[in-house]
Amino acid sequence: MDFDLRNGIAVLERTPQVLEALLSGLREEWTTGNEGPDTWSPFDVVGHLIDGELTDWMVRLRIILEQGPNRRFQPFDRFHHISRNRGRTLTALLAEFRQLREKNLGELRAMNLTPARLQLTGEHPEFGRVTLEQLLATWVAHDLGHIAQITRVMAKQYREAVGPWEAYLPVLHR
Amino acid sequence: MDFDLRNGIAVLERTPQVLEALLSGLREEWTTGNEGPDTWSPFDVVGHLIDGELTDWMVRLRIILEQGPNRRFQPFDRFHHISRNRGRTLTALLAEFRQLREKNLGELRAMNLTPARLQLTGEHPEFGRVTLEQLLATWVAHDLGHIAQITRVMAKQYREAVGPWEAYLPVLHR
Repeated sequence: MDFDLRNGIAVLERTPQVLEALLSGLREEWTTGNEGPDTWSPFDVVGHLIDGELTDWMVRLRIILEQGPNRRFQPFDRFHHISRNRGRTLTALLAEFRQLREKNLGELRAMNLTPARLQLTGEHPEFGRVTLEQLLATWVAHDLGHIAQITRVMAKQYREAVGPWEAYLPVLHR
Repeated sequence: MDFDLRNGIAVLERTPQVLEALLSGLREEWTTGNEGPDTWSPFDVVGHLIDGELTDWMVRLRIILEQGPNRRFQPFDRFHHISRNRGRTLTALLAEFRQLREKNLGELRAMNLTPARLQLTGEHPEFGRVTLEQLLATWVAHDLGHIAQITRVMAKQYREAVGPWEAYLPVLHR
């Protein structure tokens, strides 16, 4: 599918609601279980999505749009949320994520990005030149990938409880 | 995590809302794209979940609870939904799924299953004896696996649009 701004925003704007429908009010066993050492729980993933709203997507988008002499992005800290969110509740994280996402999408919509501007470029610290359109498509795919991760991690909490069905549930082996 | 009836139902009751938050109102490009020949789109997955409500989970649960002489389950038809739902809208499927799930969980709650009854067994046509508890845990993990599938399939629609980020998005390679 070609990237289309409205079609992409349609996914981005749904994510807070999806996460709340999935996680809000669940017992901690579901929201803090992970896939083993150095893997993330649903709580951690929501924290990572918050970091993205604060320091990644819109920051990089502005670097591209400003077209200054240095359009190199700062590397994104994938572990900042671990220390930042210690002791916080998932309810607080979900509310923060919703608020940040609404603010960011409000700003994105107000930019009225034209097809020409979607082709402007910035420089990724690892793989070089990327377009604004690729950045926005990545934001969307990144959301979807992390919803998939959250549900996979949750499913794995029942790996033993499902007994012999384990072999028939591919999600338990990913 | 050990299976706990209330904790399991907490996930099952959220699924209709999660699917509606994720899919309702999206353009068809998102909901009918799949992963290639003989793979399922989000539309197909919702159809498969409906089949489960109609012919799988509660039917097998009753076979176990009745403890009749033949407790062998009928094989589940994984492709029934393809012909059944041709020409229908995703909106109709989401509404049907919600209604069936609510009805099934209402019946499940009314059964007041005790820990002892959760250990009653039936016979799976392929791998033999399974407990009621394993069946219910599988229902939960199956939901979660299919939400993961839907979001993975959606993410893959942007495989090309993300450009060089493709290598950094594991969901595009599962």
